[in-house]
Amino acid sequence: MKHNFGAGPCILPQEVFKQASAGVLNFNDTGLSILEISHRATEFIAVMDEAVSLVKELLNVPEGYSVLFLQGGASLQFAMVAMNLLGEGQTAAYLETGMWAKKALAEAKILGNVNVVATSKEANFNYIPKDYSIPADSAYFHVTSNNTIFGTQMQSFPQSPVAMVSDMSSDIFSREINVADFGLIYAGAQKNIGPAGATLVIVKDEILGKVYRQIPSMLNYKTHIEGESMYNTPPVFSVFVSMLNLRWLKAKGGVAQIQIENEAKAKALYTEIDRNPFFKGTTAVEDRSKMSVCFVMENPDHEKAFLKLAEEKGCVGIKGHRSVGGFRASLYNALPITSVHVLVDAMQEFEEKFKN
Amino acid sequence: MKHNFGAGPCILPQEVFKQASAGVLNFNDTGLSILEISHRATEFIAVMDEAVSLVKELLNVPEGYSVLFLQGGASLQFAMVAMNLLGEGQTAAYLETGMWAKKALAEAKILGNVNVVATSKEANFNYIPKDYSIPADSAYFHVTSNNTIFGTQMQSFPQSPVAMVSDMSSDIFSREINVADFGLIYAGAQKNIGPAGATLVIVKDEILGKVYRQIPSMLNYKTHIEGESMYNTPPVFSVFVSMLNLRWLKAKGGVAQIQIENEAKAKALYTEIDRNPFFKGTTAVEDRSKMSVCFVMENPDHEKAFLKLAEEKGCVGIKGHRSVGGFRASLYNALPITSVHVLVDAMQEFEEKFKN
Repeated sequence: MKHNFGAGPCILPQEVFKQASAGVLNFNDTGLSILEISHRATEFIAVMDEAVSLVKELLNVPEGYSVLFLQGGASLQFAMVAMNLLGEGQTAAYLETGMWAKKALAEAKILGNVNVVATSKEANFNYIPKDYSIPADSAYFHVTSNNTIFGTQMQSFPQSPVAMVSDMSSDIFSREINVADFGLIYAGAQKNIGPAGATLVIVKDEILGKVYRQIPSMLNYKTHIEGESMYNTPPVFSVFVSMLNLRWLKAKGGVAQIQIENEAKAKALYTEIDRNPFFKGTTAVEDRSKMSVCFVMENPDHEKAFLKLAEEKGCVGIKGHRSVGGFRASLYNALPITSVHVLVDAMQEFEEKFKN
Repeated sequence: MKHNFGAGPCILPQEVFKQASAGVLNFNDTGLSILEISHRATEFIAVMDEAVSLVKELLNVPEGYSVLFLQGGASLQFAMVAMNLLGEGQTAAYLETGMWAKKALAEAKILGNVNVVATSKEANFNYIPKDYSIPADSAYFHVTSNNTIFGTQMQSFPQSPVAMVSDMSSDIFSREINVADFGLIYAGAQKNIGPAGATLVIVKDEILGKVYRQIPSMLNYKTHIEGESMYNTPPVFSVFVSMLNLRWLKAKGGVAQIQIENEAKAKALYTEIDRNPFFKGTTAVEDRSKMSVCFVMENPDHEKAFLKLAEEKGCVGIKGHRSVGGFRASLYNALPITSVHVLVDAMQEFEEKFKN
């Protein structure tokens, strides 16, 4: 039995794996594999429609927003956001909270001006800046809702005088959000949505079409809105499995219910980190991420031994990113709380063994 | 038993479906699904390396070329090719042989000047123009090797004084090519490579880096060469299944062997089209595609009845594109010749039934 704490691509529900595996042999009783059917087939159009509907339902997406399944991951969105929203001579506001935020603003700089309204770079991104203002003449304001590498998460979003754009790759569908607060939300699928290869975009239609730049068709959100995510061949299998996973989330009780479970998982782990004298958290307590729990050991020499012990218990993917070190336990939606208990037990066993 | 003549996403070998399905439950005996492993895991890096090696081996890719697995399909390549190769003030030469060629050149026009060196538009693209010259000061020369909608295929490629770029989405790996004749080859995976969601690019390194445009990282071939197709999370499952499919092709005897089989399949079907008085081909005989066989009926009123008969025999995906009408049988690598025989039998049965 493996307990998959990997940062992504990451664990999805076991029943989704079973359904996906079956669909590769015989999709929807067509006698054909999901891998060999046309994306224009009625059966696949139904999959895409259901995936989009589930996103709208689970996140309570208001009227006036389009939901798209694209390709290229958040990294392509870094460029597409600027290409579609940052007009010539305009400036976009960015909150710099980690490596992904840095990459996002670097891409925007290729196309226009960037104003970093606040950064926590000086503290190795171990907190979320809160004291800043967003100029009302910004083209948009960009935030990264959860920072996988540094283990911080925005617990609330500021009131923005301009369209707020958020990279939610690592916490979308993990907690309730108010979509109406955002102009655009994007997320690589490979955490709480589905397998790598699909990218979710939720965009308020009225913010588009305001820059005069000529945009290649594939990089223009309007192309994909008109084409209903079928302008060209979509990543069929990734959309199919995303649909299965969103069905699972709905059956579980939706985002409100998974949020309760995610909070319980995070609480169990942070409680142990704070209690156990061998471990400590790496971030400001009020900014702790409920998806990406980063921690180190009081004595770094212990880390190798603890990693070995945790792996013996079946815990995989807990090694921290090199820029923080230590450990990172990702607690995505599909990770059961029993896996967290196994990790906590390993921490307690380590304490017992080394306390004298 | 279904006979899948779909234009793409299309049939892959049954054993590849079985291996892919098993990998979704337990990849490579890791106890984890291929959908939940990190793309940085040793086991997946091995998959990516093998996929790239198989491409190099099967196509005999010379030194000095990079092989990439990207996202976005050929449609994103239409823009990336121009972004990376068409400098300001330069002109790119395009051969206009069908809808995909038109789309490719339309995207290039967004970024620079396009010179259509020849077109068969006036004849609804039912032949490949051969009498044209390629200006030696062109940034590159672009061709579409196989035209799925119109059923034509370049049987040979011209000598080009500048880097030749080819969209080979629908015939790569179906026949031997000389990669050294090309500066860049690209192909959406979803015909002879693997499932939708991955895009193969083979690029001669020395043609890159010659334009002064600032290119967003994800759209710059150099980014992906440096990142070895892992600059960001790749489409893990699509690459995995592509690797399985290329392994299958190698085990079958490689491209030379599959070319023999593809020629036999095409011959069987074209022979019947030419013999059977109820059917006729739609393209110039010398330009007939061995992958995309387009044909109509002498009496269009018969088409509905024939489609019904073919479907009763298990033939799916044979309806022609609306711009040509009639039928299109795609004979991709994984389609067995027995499926072609079933279709030919249906044509003969139709003839018997209606000849009086």
